[in-house]
Amino acid sequence: MAGCPLITTFGIVELVPDNCIQDFCVANLNSSISVNGFPCKPDAEVTSHDFFFDGFSKEGNTTNVFGSRVTPGNVLTFPGLNTLGISMNRVDFAPGGLNPPHSHPRASETGVVIQGKLLVGFITTGNVYHSKVLTAGQMFVVPKGLVHFQLNVGEGKAHAFTAFNSHLPGAAVLPLNLFASAPAIPNGVLTKAFQVEDDVINAIKSKFGS
Amino acid sequence: MAGCPLITTFGIVELVPDNCIQDFCVANLNSSISVNGFPCKPDAEVTSHDFFFDGFSKEGNTTNVFGSRVTPGNVLTFPGLNTLGISMNRVDFAPGGLNPPHSHPRASETGVVIQGKLLVGFITTGNVYHSKVLTAGQMFVVPKGLVHFQLNVGEGKAHAFTAFNSHLPGAAVLPLNLFASAPAIPNGVLTKAFQVEDDVINAIKSKFGS
Amino acid sequence: MAGCPLITTFGIVELVPDNCIQDFCVANLNSSISVNGFPCKPDAEVTSHDFFFDGFSKEGNTTNVFGSRVTPGNVLTFPGLNTLGISMNRVDFAPGGLNPPHSHPRASETGVVIQGKLLVGFITTGNVYHSKVLTAGQMFVVPKGLVHFQLNVGEGKAHAFTAFNSHLPGAAVLPLNLFASAPAIPNGVLTKAFQVEDDVINAIKSKFGS
Amino acid sequence: MAGCPLITTFGIVELVPDNCIQDFCVANLNSSISVNGFPCKPDAEVTSHDFFFDGFSKEGNTTNVFGSRVTPGNVLTFPGLNTLGISMNRVDFAPGGLNPPHSHPRASETGVVIQGKLLVGFITTGNVYHSKVLTAGQMFVVPKGLVHFQLNVGEGKAHAFTAFNSHLPGAAVLPLNLFASAPAIPNGVLTKAFQVEDDVINAIKSKFGS
Amino acid sequence: MAGCPLITTFGIVELVPDNCIQDFCVANLNSSISVNGFPCKPDAEVTSHDFFFDGFSKEGNTTNVFGSRVTPGNVLTFPGLNTLGISMNRVDFAPGGLNPPHSHPRASETGVVIQGKLLVGFITTGNVYHSKVLTAGQMFVVPKGLVHFQLNVGEGKAHAFTAFNSHLPGAAVLPLNLFASAPAIPNGVLTKAFQVEDDVINAIKSKFGS
Amino acid sequence: MAGCPLITTFGIVELVPDNCIQDFCVANLNSSISVNGFPCKPDAEVTSHDFFFDGFSKEGNTTNVFGSRVTPGNVLTFPGLNTLGISMNRVDFAPGGLNPPHSHPRASETGVVIQGKLLVGFITTGNVYHSKVLTAGQMFVVPKGLVHFQLNVGEGKAHAFTAFNSHLPGAAVLPLNLFASAPAIPNGVLTKAFQVEDDVINAIKSKFGS
Repeated sequence: MAGCPLITTFGIVELVPDNCIQDFCVANLNSSISVNGFPCKPDAEVTSHDFFFDGFSKEGNTTNVFGSRVTPGNVLTFPGLNTLGISMNRVDFAPGGLNPPHSHPRASETGVVIQGKLLVGFITTGNVYHSKVLTAGQMFVVPKGLVHFQLNVGEGKAHAFTAFNSHLPGAAVLPLNLFASAPAIPNGVLTKAFQVEDDVINAIKSKFGS
Repeated sequence: MAGCPLITTFGIVELVPDNCIQDFCVANLNSSISVNGFPCKPDAEVTSHDFFFDGFSKEGNTTNVFGSRVTPGNVLTFPGLNTLGISMNRVDFAPGGLNPPHSHPRASETGVVIQGKLLVGFITTGNVYHSKVLTAGQMFVVPKGLVHFQLNVGEGKAHAFTAFNSHLPGAAVLPLNLFASAPAIPNGVLTKAFQVEDDVINAIKSKFGS
Repeated sequence: MAGCPLITTFGIVELVPDNCIQDFCVANLNSSISVNGFPCKPDAEVTSHDFFFDGFSKEGNTTNVFGSRVTPGNVLTFPGLNTLGISMNRVDFAPGGLNPPHSHPRASETGVVIQGKLLVGFITTGNVYHSKVLTAGQMFVVPKGLVHFQLNVGEGKAHAFTAFNSHLPGAAVLPLNLFASAPAIPNGVLTKAFQVEDDVINAIKSKFGS
Repeated sequence: MAGCPLITTFGIVELVPDNCIQDFCVANLNSSISVNGFPCKPDAEVTSHDFFFDGFSKEGNTTNVFGSRVTPGNVLTFPGLNTLGISMNRVDFAPGGLNPPHSHPRASETGVVIQGKLLVGFITTGNVYHSKVLTAGQMFVVPKGLVHFQLNVGEGKAHAFTAFNSHLPGAAVLPLNLFASAPAIPNGVLTKAFQVEDDVINAIKSKFGS
Repeated sequence: MAGCPLITTFGIVELVPDNCIQDFCVANLNSSISVNGFPCKPDAEVTSHDFFFDGFSKEGNTTNVFGSRVTPGNVLTFPGLNTLGISMNRVDFAPGGLNPPHSHPRASETGVVIQGKLLVGFITTGNVYHSKVLTAGQMFVVPKGLVHFQLNVGEGKAHAFTAFNSHLPGAAVLPLNLFASAPAIPNGVLTKAFQVEDDVINAIKSKFGS
Repeated sequence: MAGCPLITTFGIVELVPDNCIQDFCVANLNSSISVNGFPCKPDAEVTSHDFFFDGFSKEGNTTNVFGSRVTPGNVLTFPGLNTLGISMNRVDFAPGGLNPPHSHPRASETGVVIQGKLLVGFITTGNVYHSKVLTAGQMFVVPKGLVHFQLNVGEGKAHAFTAFNSHLPGAAVLPLNLFASAPAIPNGVLTKAFQVEDDVINAIKSKFGS
């Protein structure tokens, strides 16, 4: 960027290049400087391609212990979302697949089922569980930061699109947070928290390779 | 609401009803009091049904001058979204249908094409036009407040789901804002703005019944 | 409130009563109207007592399965905090007591140990565990929405004061959210999430009276 | 308000009355309910008059100890500003008049001198004083919450328009806050703060009628 | 910047230079790094001049198709406004001059007429048009993101000062956005949107040199 | 940082290093680039030590004119707080010590007395003074931007912990802002503001070494 030209709000002879308008800030994921969010690509390098994303065309690979897969359309995969406060995910489910209990530290979530039959549930901070079985065209909401999950309760595959009011909502996936962190949470914390013996904790940890 | 019980963060003997936690505020659309957003339904009346919405299951009726239809999943139709800063729309297009140029005063937008072939475009405040033809599974973003549209350029019907970081993004639909307001914008403003004669303005207004 | 008098910013003859200034909005916890946050007490009823809170003088009762107790100084107990975006807790620990893994959906947290020796830990969304054993006068931070806990690893009692950038941060206490909700989360979700059999889930649920 | 009609984003046959759109929330200053900001006037009572304000046409009365007068165009005088996060003031100065040192707890400020010659100054939290003498057409900025003042250093009258990014920025006017509060701040606080004897504090208080 | 000295909140022997206080962040418009907003000038280079702006002293040149001129006092011309969430414009009008229909994607707007007679209008998302003819000393508000304009309906010149709650509100100027973008919006979009034939669209485009 | 790896929300084989998750942004206080807040430490250099702070273990030195000392636990001393919107201070008081009248431009404040007996007071923008004498375990709140102070009214030493909803709340310490700035505020401003003669102003200034 070679400095910002003076921009008057209108005036036909003064149409300026698309710099310094700050309508957007396409993420430069490889900047030498790290900030909250990402620095912007230089204006001269921004093109229309930066505002479109092709990652949702293919079904996600659900061959894993949970039988589900999140394909994120967030700032890390779709840099044009940087600073705009919004993102989407595609979530695919094998029959019986589970998007395990997790919370998003930085966003509320909505979603719409496109295919299949999903049990969608969340738990309030008052420990009330709200849930419903949804089919194609039905929408749900999960308030910011609450623990929630989706389970494929239909016969076949399922998928949904979800939306978040953050360019990078993050996810604290509870089984992994608690039993597969590096380094591991001491067993003494987990046995007291869940009122079980060491062997139960060790068994769960082993399932996640810890 | 008969007052808020004291809630300690945990303690098994103290599981409390789901009131006063303020994880959410399901809109009471019929309150006698009007605030920015909506007052909340009394806690005692909130049920799981408040967090799910069934309005996207059916194709919208596209029989109108634009050949498109927006079915909103915002706070007015899905009261559970109130104060959560997020909403979604289903947008249906007849062949050749247009979601006409508009801007959302209170939200950035993302969207994913589910069926068909859409030309998706937006214009920056620097008057640069960014666009792409998208097919199923492709995603777009429109930065907050910018003018944008979608046009069905495929052979058949099309539909998309869009998401917004507001529970009620609003839409300034430009043809209606400019040519179909009540009362009407004086012709003198529009002729000077678009550098045309009165007859052109009158002709456009007449198309929108004004 | 009988309407707002016109207030000029200064002028000695115009000192006005403390209404309509909106420096604060002391919560009316018993209002017939529910909003996001709470309606304000009428100005005429606000006194200096509304800005001070006496709830932290006594040690909390730690006789429960976790051996800890959170005494909240949030909007529900200290209504003067309403809309000000800040609150504090006192957390007491018996020897070996645990403030079990939880996340706050609406706040980052800091805390300072006043007495005793606490293992303080949190887990990132990338499943990295950060922890340290802290003694009196040491401070910690937990980024917004991340799972964290504190464990008394000293010989005697311990207590800390914590602070939050919300008047009601909420807490998703994971053992209770997952195993003690009402209604209960179906076992099928939990067995798949933690890769255990029904009997393990049932055993944990029974410990929490579910 | 008798409930919110369903609004589709466009569709010519569906032009709806101006309710439930929530583009604005004109303050109801006489509501029986008090919230942070103000409840909204019922939609049916909103008219174009709500978006215009006539209070700046007349010079303010500067006959007071400071020789200046702030005429506020904030939510209390111009209810249409409610929730929109912006307001303006007209400030008039007699020759030698001072808008005394004050800070706005809820806004940054800009201003432009319309008539006369003003010394405009602010002090950073690092105790650095920034100032300049401004004449008609010159603009200044005061960062949020910093102490600042304007002094008429010209021969005649002066006036300026200021703008704030809050509908009710508030003003802690330091001479009045410190020496004219009700009840009074104890002398022991003020003598220690300013390193003077009681008689100096009493003398200042007496000038402000305390 | 050579690192941040430790700053205690007060203590006379510790008056520090004006760095690291972050009361402000004067824009460095020529930084090699681009972020949302602008990086800050190094503290050592900040002077009082950074907080004052001289651009409003002269009448803007209104010799253009619209007969009006916006002189911006935003972060691009007045770098001291960076990150402070506020800016102002001077708007000049020739007799009959129009500030054409536009919306600000990132700000609400207020304004005060200084000279002349202006028709000020905006249109809600519900397509209701609110307007009034204003003279010197009268103030208006335009809610965030709504389409609005000002037309000089007096005999002579006119000018106003406007204020925005953003350091760079941006403006989607509708005639230019729709008919003068680069590249051009396809005629098929515009003919369908405005229900006119190609020749009308081409005629308008030609007026704006497209 | 060598670019951001693609992160899927979960999937055991894909546990990634702790980069690009943006749960936090530990301040790099020595960056060559200055932004609002601070750039982040490179991910590879972040360790658990970044989330803990040891500065509150020792009593602050209260040997100064005010007889008090603020030890800040903000982003400048505890870089892990950067961008998280929260910080704490330890405040120590000699007998009779005063934390002089000041306001925080960027935060509301709460605090809890740990030892001793403090008179805690604040003044509203309507010039109403709210105060109380607090002892150990009692909590107070000061709404954002209001002038406040604490005075040790007990026999011995006192100390408190305070919390702020900003990583760097700043403090406009009024005696220093008004009488010890560099350069000095002209006497003409201060004599008019406080309605005293030059000699009083000069005497106060001299106490603060100006």
